[in-house]
Amino acid sequence: MLDLLNQHRTVRKYTDQKIDPELLTKLLESACRASNTGNMQAYSIIVTTDTEIKKQLAPAHFNQPMIAQAPVVLTFCADFNLFTKWCEQRQANPGYDNFQSFIASAIDTLLAAQTFCIAAESVGLGICYLGTTTYNAREIIDTLQLPKLVVPVTTITVGYPDGLPEQTDRLPLNAVVHTETYHEFSSNEIDAIYSEKEHSEFYKQFVLENQKETLAQVFTDIRYSKVNNEFFSDKFLTVLKEQGFLK
Amino acid sequence: MLDLLNQHRTVRKYTDQKIDPELLTKLLESACRASNTGNMQAYSIIVTTDTEIKKQLAPAHFNQPMIAQAPVVLTFCADFNLFTKWCEQRQANPGYDNFQSFIASAIDTLLAAQTFCIAAESVGLGICYLGTTTYNAREIIDTLQLPKLVVPVTTITVGYPDGLPEQTDRLPLNAVVHTETYHEFSSNEIDAIYSEKEHSEFYKQFVLENQKETLAQVFTDIRYSKVNNEFFSDKFLTVLKEQGFLK
Repeated sequence: MLDLLNQHRTVRKYTDQKIDPELLTKLLESACRASNTGNMQAYSIIVTTDTEIKKQLAPAHFNQPMIAQAPVVLTFCADFNLFTKWCEQRQANPGYDNFQSFIASAIDTLLAAQTFCIAAESVGLGICYLGTTTYNAREIIDTLQLPKLVVPVTTITVGYPDGLPEQTDRLPLNAVVHTETYHEFSSNEIDAIYSEKEHSEFYKQFVLENQKETLAQVFTDIRYSKVNNEFFSDKFLTVLKEQGFLK
Repeated sequence: MLDLLNQHRTVRKYTDQKIDPELLTKLLESACRASNTGNMQAYSIIVTTDTEIKKQLAPAHFNQPMIAQAPVVLTFCADFNLFTKWCEQRQANPGYDNFQSFIASAIDTLLAAQTFCIAAESVGLGICYLGTTTYNAREIIDTLQLPKLVVPVTTITVGYPDGLPEQTDRLPLNAVVHTETYHEFSSNEIDAIYSEKEHSEFYKQFVLENQKETLAQVFTDIRYSKVNNEFFSDKFLTVLKEQGFLK
């Protein structure tokens, strides 16, 4: 079991093999066994296989080829719509149109998403998370016709792997694990933590190709820049307001 | 593997058995293999075993007994502190003091958390998620000495199960899974979705004990009320501002 988790890699290319609908249902059922807040199950999973709808989703994901190529696209959404409607039908006064409810339902959504991924990998499928979901939540909401109190949080493409991609590196464990309380890093410790990454041929090449001086600059200037992060922050906050999770 | 996921239950009572530190390290390493945004690993995991620090954490979790009783308490945090400091040390201009960066790192945090839980359950440990983490993030930050750009997102207590708790029910799959696009629910469909839950002896008793007319009212009036949700929304938004993730 730990072997399965330790073998995880992101799979971006899939064979033509379809996923058996019964198998997919089983995987989704396992995903729904994940822990969730108060057993409210405040999430939804949109299963998209239709070529036309995938085509409509693609621009929201910057046309990454996985959307068109994967047999199944799953959009995982924070969802207080169903629960709120149930409350209204039961003489109860729902109060889930706020930020804390969004956070609670986003947590539930992500635990279900990751459980789905592990379930999928255990039966030989490959998955890819698309971080573009919160960048372009507005466009996804329109395409998937998500009502108020439903916000997409992440998207997963799933299919049978076409080839075995390389595993990506990880920082040493002391970069993320702290004992008892938070240990603030010294300048030397930061050098040590990033040393292996910065000295690998793979990343040296990556810095060269991007014509930057340091690996960090590839992140700050190209991949996750301040100007983009701020643009998409405003956009996502607007979506939370429009969908009723923020006043 | 699906069996393991399907057998998941929240474990709130633990035996006195300690968790072997080497085993814990292995589980944390597996957790860090989870997918994450741009391989930035923008999260941290605070491992607390010290009785005194657990005692300080307990009020933030409304003194739920798991905190004191579990051999290990893990606080999973969205963390752009380390990455930002690395950028500053590498002539790069970091731009992660914004809401989109918080969301991206919270997503990474939760995928690692759920992977940890599945790894832990696979070796016979039991886990419990504490939703109180985002309610009282401020108090947790103070106790664990979390710097700017670090915000706790969820907490897990871990230990060897003292007894096998009942599994909780789940809604039928069509309550959360939608095909191609979102299917809005009719009033009859909502009745059908909640029928099994509402007719179970367990929940009938639960409604009686709470002196309410409907199960939904137990949620809206007692467990997750509008007034509490709004109070904790303001509190968490303030924390995001104070920690540098929101302007």
